[in-house]
Amino acid sequence: MRSREAAFLLSNRVARLATVDEEGGPHLIPICYAYDGEFLYSAVDEKPKRVKPDRLKRIRNIAANPKVALLVDAYDEDWSKLAFVLIQGKATLLENPEERERAIELLRKRYEQYIGMDLHDPRRPIIKITLVKVTAWGDV
Amino acid sequence: MRSREAAFLLSNRVARLATVDEEGGPHLIPICYAYDGEFLYSAVDEKPKRVKPDRLKRIRNIAANPKVALLVDAYDEDWSKLAFVLIQGKATLLENPEERERAIELLRKRYEQYIGMDLHDPRRPIIKITLVKVTAWGDV
Repeated sequence: MRSREAAFLLSNRVARLATVDEEGGPHLIPICYAYDGEFLYSAVDEKPKRVKPDRLKRIRNIAANPKVALLVDAYDEDWSKLAFVLIQGKATLLENPEERERAIELLRKRYEQYIGMDLHDPRRPIIKITLVKVTAWGDV
Repeated sequence: MRSREAAFLLSNRVARLATVDEEGGPHLIPICYAYDGEFLYSAVDEKPKRVKPDRLKRIRNIAANPKVALLVDAYDEDWSKLAFVLIQGKATLLENPEERERAIELLRKRYEQYIGMDLHDPRRPIIKITLVKVTAWGDV
């Protein structure tokens, strides 16, 4: 990822994550994320969920199909200022405790809201995204 | 869609559209959209594109797989105020001139930026989304 794209990514606070189910249907949610210069990370945190963390649609989709897309964009009524960075990649669920710890640290550096949350419970998946293709458009 | 979900949808200006390619890979872009109470519409407009409208990834994906997801969300540093509406549906490309005209009217009512743009060129696809499932989360 080029430095302007990384700066745009990190200047935003929310991204959208698309995953795909076994029948080829897309699923899409807003996520918080961290980027260490190589990989992207996102936690399944304590915000209210309807089902247990490992039964979440995004997690089941990634288990069936690791291909994901992540988008960060800026909207403005002046359409000359529109911008987005699209990241297409492959997702895995972090299992190594040290890698999980590092990802949690990165997420807590970006989001103080995570400081009071227990992200360490291994039943709470942490998603790691390996970048395959990065596309920037507009005023990035 | 319930009235609160529709109100949330219409109070936002940008949505994200996920489509899926033939290899099961998701694609994701920000879009402008209109909603007539039954269907969602989005135009391939004159914002700069790298390729001709009918070669755009979203259009090729929809031709191969009509399943799409559309997300509207609100981010706030107070995470008790987070919200989203996720629409999973099936997309088609409008070919009927009267349906196209109606969709263009709806889009122009929401976005004055469209008034000066030529959306009538039949080579510019207009996407129509039939809602299959609507999911609301948080402070909608």
